[in-house]
Amino acid sequence: MAGIKVHGSPFSTAAARVLATLYEKEVEFEFVPVDMRAGEHKKEAFLSINPFGQVPGFEHGDLKLFESRAITKYVANEYAGKGTDLVFGDSKKKAIIGVWMEVEAHQFDPVASKLVWELAAKPAYGMGDTDKAVVEENEAKLVKVLDVYESRLAESKYLGCESFTLVDLHHLPCINYLMGTEIKKLFDSRPHVSAWIADITSRPAWSKVVAMQKRQ
Amino acid sequence: MAGIKVHGSPFSTAAARVLATLYEKEVEFEFVPVDMRAGEHKKEAFLSINPFGQVPGFEHGDLKLFESRAITKYVANEYAGKGTDLVFGDSKKKAIIGVWMEVEAHQFDPVASKLVWELAAKPAYGMGDTDKAVVEENEAKLVKVLDVYESRLAESKYLGCESFTLVDLHHLPCINYLMGTEIKKLFDSRPHVSAWIADITSRPAWSKVVAMQKRQ
Repeated sequence: MAGIKVHGSPFSTAAARVLATLYEKEVEFEFVPVDMRAGEHKKEAFLSINPFGQVPGFEHGDLKLFESRAITKYVANEYAGKGTDLVFGDSKKKAIIGVWMEVEAHQFDPVASKLVWELAAKPAYGMGDTDKAVVEENEAKLVKVLDVYESRLAESKYLGCESFTLVDLHHLPCINYLMGTEIKKLFDSRPHVSAWIADITSRPAWSKVVAMQKRQ
Repeated sequence: MAGIKVHGSPFSTAAARVLATLYEKEVEFEFVPVDMRAGEHKKEAFLSINPFGQVPGFEHGDLKLFESRAITKYVANEYAGKGTDLVFGDSKKKAIIGVWMEVEAHQFDPVASKLVWELAAKPAYGMGDTDKAVVEENEAKLVKVLDVYESRLAESKYLGCESFTLVDLHHLPCINYLMGTEIKKLFDSRPHVSAWIADITSRPAWSKVVAMQKRQ
């Protein structure tokens, strides 16, 4: 099968999730930049990969995928024997990892993404003023999520189990942005959350994604 | 391992997703009603299953799970040889089913859930007036999602592949509510979407969930 292509921008949290997975799995890939300011993700070539017009798009030979978490799961399973083991365990362990995978997607990400938009993206790209009411509402929601995380991480080294998995990895892009904003205080004030963030953000695979962002 | 218990209300779209899966798999279970009006889902007994205090909660012997889509995936895999086959295929087919699984979770559900809340839940439970601006905004988003679904269903009998899978099942609870609202017109005006809805809502397993809602 021909090689892997990732279409997107390393600044996109969804694309960064896929890039981090490929680096963890030590899988070669070609990165194809998508010029979102020029609306390239809404044009036919990209829409043929993702009809919703959102980065990243992913190709592996004739297989075309979109939705970052579907791509990371495919890569983690397809290259099970290579690089970091990101999905594993018996059916019970997999079920618990599955619970925390959904927690990231439904409890953490909707809230964290809104905060990234208001506090990191808007100021960086001159996309208008930060909406303080949105920040306040989502900060309150994030506090509740982080309180659950603090309890979970007091009894388990990582969110899904005792080892680093896709669950932790999926959090990296939003956390990395939020660590550069006033939200950092919410992480710093929770010792287990804080130690977990220090651990996962220092992984060499993640550093490669951060380096891609700096090169752009 | 001791039997399965589902804690929740059949009116909850998330709980209904789990109930439909158990009926499709022909797996015996005990249903434990959670009195949400009395705030039972925010009390210690329920929080020990789901620290986020949201139904459903799920027990299978000493295994405790939450997040409806994590539960349905566990049941579909754990009882792979029983009832309807809901997850299958080689790695490529599984990857494509995975894409549409994420589409339901990230493109369809956030929009459909807001419409269910405004147009079905609020009127049914006297939870205040329908917010017309929220309806308008989410109706416009749903149109875009359904246009993609119409194209997808023109080339594939079901969203994930040629057979009914968890992808289609996960849509059932919200679609069932929305078919009783003004949103029905958006489904009816798209022939492939309309035929797909007629097909999936007439499954005997789903009828059992609807019957549970009527008994309450």
